[in-house]
Amino acid sequence: MHNFVFHNPTKILFGQGTIEAIGPETRPWGERALLVYGQSSLKRNGLYDRIVASLRAAGLEVAEHGGVRSNPLLSHVREGIRLAKAHRAEVIVAAGGGSVIDTAKAIAAGAPVEHDVWKFFTGKKGIKTVLPVTTVLTLAASGSEMNSGMVVTNDDTREKFGFGHRLLHPRTSILDPRTTCTVPPEYTVYGAVDAISHVLEFYLTAADPDTPVQDRLMEGLIENAMVACERCLRDPFDYHGRANLMWTATLALNGLTSAGLGRVGFPMHLIEHSLSGLYDVPHGAGLAVVMLGWLRAHHRTAAARIGTLGRRLFGLSELEPQATADRTIARFQAWLHSVNAPLTLDDLDIPATDIPRIAANTSGLARIWRLADYTPDRVAAILHHCLSPR
Amino acid sequence: MHNFVFHNPTKILFGQGTIEAIGPETRPWGERALLVYGQSSLKRNGLYDRIVASLRAAGLEVAEHGGVRSNPLLSHVREGIRLAKAHRAEVIVAAGGGSVIDTAKAIAAGAPVEHDVWKFFTGKKGIKTVLPVTTVLTLAASGSEMNSGMVVTNDDTREKFGFGHRLLHPRTSILDPRTTCTVPPEYTVYGAVDAISHVLEFYLTAADPDTPVQDRLMEGLIENAMVACERCLRDPFDYHGRANLMWTATLALNGLTSAGLGRVGFPMHLIEHSLSGLYDVPHGAGLAVVMLGWLRAHHRTAAARIGTLGRRLFGLSELEPQATADRTIARFQAWLHSVNAPLTLDDLDIPATDIPRIAANTSGLARIWRLADYTPDRVAAILHHCLSPR
Repeated sequence: MHNFVFHNPTKILFGQGTIEAIGPETRPWGERALLVYGQSSLKRNGLYDRIVASLRAAGLEVAEHGGVRSNPLLSHVREGIRLAKAHRAEVIVAAGGGSVIDTAKAIAAGAPVEHDVWKFFTGKKGIKTVLPVTTVLTLAASGSEMNSGMVVTNDDTREKFGFGHRLLHPRTSILDPRTTCTVPPEYTVYGAVDAISHVLEFYLTAADPDTPVQDRLMEGLIENAMVACERCLRDPFDYHGRANLMWTATLALNGLTSAGLGRVGFPMHLIEHSLSGLYDVPHGAGLAVVMLGWLRAHHRTAAARIGTLGRRLFGLSELEPQATADRTIARFQAWLHSVNAPLTLDDLDIPATDIPRIAANTSGLARIWRLADYTPDRVAAILHHCLSPR
Repeated sequence: MHNFVFHNPTKILFGQGTIEAIGPETRPWGERALLVYGQSSLKRNGLYDRIVASLRAAGLEVAEHGGVRSNPLLSHVREGIRLAKAHRAEVIVAAGGGSVIDTAKAIAAGAPVEHDVWKFFTGKKGIKTVLPVTTVLTLAASGSEMNSGMVVTNDDTREKFGFGHRLLHPRTSILDPRTTCTVPPEYTVYGAVDAISHVLEFYLTAADPDTPVQDRLMEGLIENAMVACERCLRDPFDYHGRANLMWTATLALNGLTSAGLGRVGFPMHLIEHSLSGLYDVPHGAGLAVVMLGWLRAHHRTAAARIGTLGRRLFGLSELEPQATADRTIARFQAWLHSVNAPLTLDDLDIPATDIPRIAANTSGLARIWRLADYTPDRVAAILHHCLSPR
């Protein structure tokens, strides 16, 4: 096990009827709040009214910044920063999924400074202080509700960059699984795939092979994401299915899985960020495709690890280690197929002739994420494995 | 899944060479520290000097309160509180295992008030403020380094009571597995048994049967405690074995396993507290015996849950559910035997004729822990199952 620091101060309120705590949980951080949210669904399902009522009842003056879309845009973040400054916001409240929470974090980072917020993402400036963030989560997927990261797409350059800082842990996140019962099937799957990818990438890229504590945790989370996803597809209003998926997605990227693994990489996310940055496909849809391509491209070099996962997850025990790894990949593909996830670039309407363009797009983020060994050539090779559902 | 609040703000520094951070991690909380530690081992292995040097180098004025023993005593806590007040300590530093950290927490709770600290344990007073605590952990066992609980024995009444408050989470805990390489084999086992019990009790008493996220986490921790313990017995200086055991024990009782389970009980700890309160047996030794007795006494009523554990942990798949449960208990017993843990009251030199006395002793804590269904009669029946290693 490698040395590590684990420090996750986010307070989680989980369960039915917890939404109304957003006011009391936010008020200690200030009197003036900026409420960040997405599209119309929050208003349609009544959540918006409940959240604003709770904030006002707690004595908060609320300005708002709606309209966050999935793959949130830098231009919209900048607008939010202007609003936060104009309102003299002391605290940012996010109500939505990962895109909304990431937008709120970016506003929280950008509001206290004079320079452009993108400089944090490109490493040209460092974060010194942020506004506190509280959240109401409405989608089980990104894990942003209990970590310090954020991902934003620069609409000028089409770079989708991720960045984090320990100060950006939300102070309180409210997780009511009932808010996710109306999430459509395809987005439920995309969320599960996102959570699986967060775990799988660390599992497969960890430098340290002697981490059984983390391994058992990660295998359990992957299994739960799959099982809970199936439950939610069978019955979208299965509360416990939604609850299991929600808590799984949160634990999948809250720092616990990676603590002790040493340096881990996020290569599937790296490549997917170029897909959704360039083509605006849903993040989880892109991930399903890249995940399969990555596994195929590394079916020999990562065979031992993929095989361990297959033995633990699917009870596989082929005699040949390579056969176990290959069978594990086949089982993953079968599962993705069973939940109607896209399997190929073609399923995403991305032409094979675009592979060089996508591979070139990954370079900037590869450098920042210290994945320099993911050269455009290597990325292109992985993308070629995303062409056929073989 | 039940509603829950999860909030664990303890910062963990884990790994080789982290001890020297205790000064810088403690200094932000004050200038005057009380260092709490146990017996001579801390001085013998050089840790004492390194810790004091780090604290002084960070500018702290250090008073000290050594001599904490396992099953720490209220009289010694009271003495520590007097010292903390005389020194006008602003922060308490614990260097040792669970007993030392629990003593430090009790001092941290008692130092800011005028009344006797035992009133917190009996529920006659509530905690409003505490001194901050930092720790250097030297034994993988209690989990106290990342939770808000503490256990102290009242030497007048022989009551061993546990109590917790969210303010008692250590601010920083330093976990260097190398400090545990000199822990003797029997105490390595007691620590592993303690960690297993922390997980097993929640696993077997959880009110909510629909918690697969927590279940997989708990099964993984039990497996890891067993495997890592065996490694440490084979080679006490196996760093990764020690690291896996240490991190397992911390995660076993940091709030994560129980979050979402609803009301859980701690009946094995309840009964064991009477054993070590009355006879001063090591906590983990008493737990090994009580764990087996509890499992035997509930082999039918808890058969489904015990069987699930056996299938996951030992790959059991008997046709009869009851047979799986019974076989799981047999496997646990065989494992405890293989690591030379005590299996019966006789192994602890406790006569069967004392069972009524032990059962009577549990009453006070049973009430406080809301385990009123653990009547003296029921406890006596469980203890009768602790007589023979059948």
